[in-house]
Amino acid sequence: MEEVRIPDMADKAMALLRADADKIYKLIDVQMENLTMPQCPLYEEVLDTQMFGLSREVEFAVRLGLIEEELGRSIMDELEKRLADLHEMFNSKK
Amino acid sequence: MEEVRIPDMADKAMALLRADADKIYKLIDVQMENLTMPQCPLYEEVLDTQMFGLSREVEFAVRLGLIEEELGRSIMDELEKRLADLHEMFNSKK
Repeated sequence: MEEVRIPDMADKAMALLRADADKIYKLIDVQMENLTMPQCPLYEEVLDTQMFGLSREVEFAVRLGLIEEELGRSIMDELEKRLADLHEMFNSKK
Repeated sequence: MEEVRIPDMADKAMALLRADADKIYKLIDVQMENLTMPQCPLYEEVLDTQMFGLSREVEFAVRLGLIEEELGRSIMDELEKRLADLHEMFNSKK
């Protein structure tokens, strides 16, 4: 474990967080294309839970000193923006 | 950031996770001593959400290679055991 360098670990943390953000995006994308509508309470719950989980990971990486707080916030903000765009696209197709 | 050593970061990760586990324990302890009963759905929801958040942090530390998977599982198991004891104590006092 000692051979890993801190900058490498910071990169790994960012890669993991981005991958998890993408996973949430894809999950919501699939949900929208299939049965579940954004008005469905279950959809909201799934999204809230996933966003909460990601925010905990981001906060943890910040508390460890692996990423800056602002960078952490930008991961969440970016995902929220992408989801809002997706939502809008879905609504305009109806 | 480069001055921090990986073993120090692993220690920090463990300290953060233990502190978060303690926080959940205390939250549930306070809830039990006050208004909210373990039979209340809100209690279950708070507990589930907090446990989910902690499990995400633990998994993240494991994925980063900071802690072993088994150690991560032991943090969750230990907290669950402490909460079960607390629950039992609460029920026996009634």
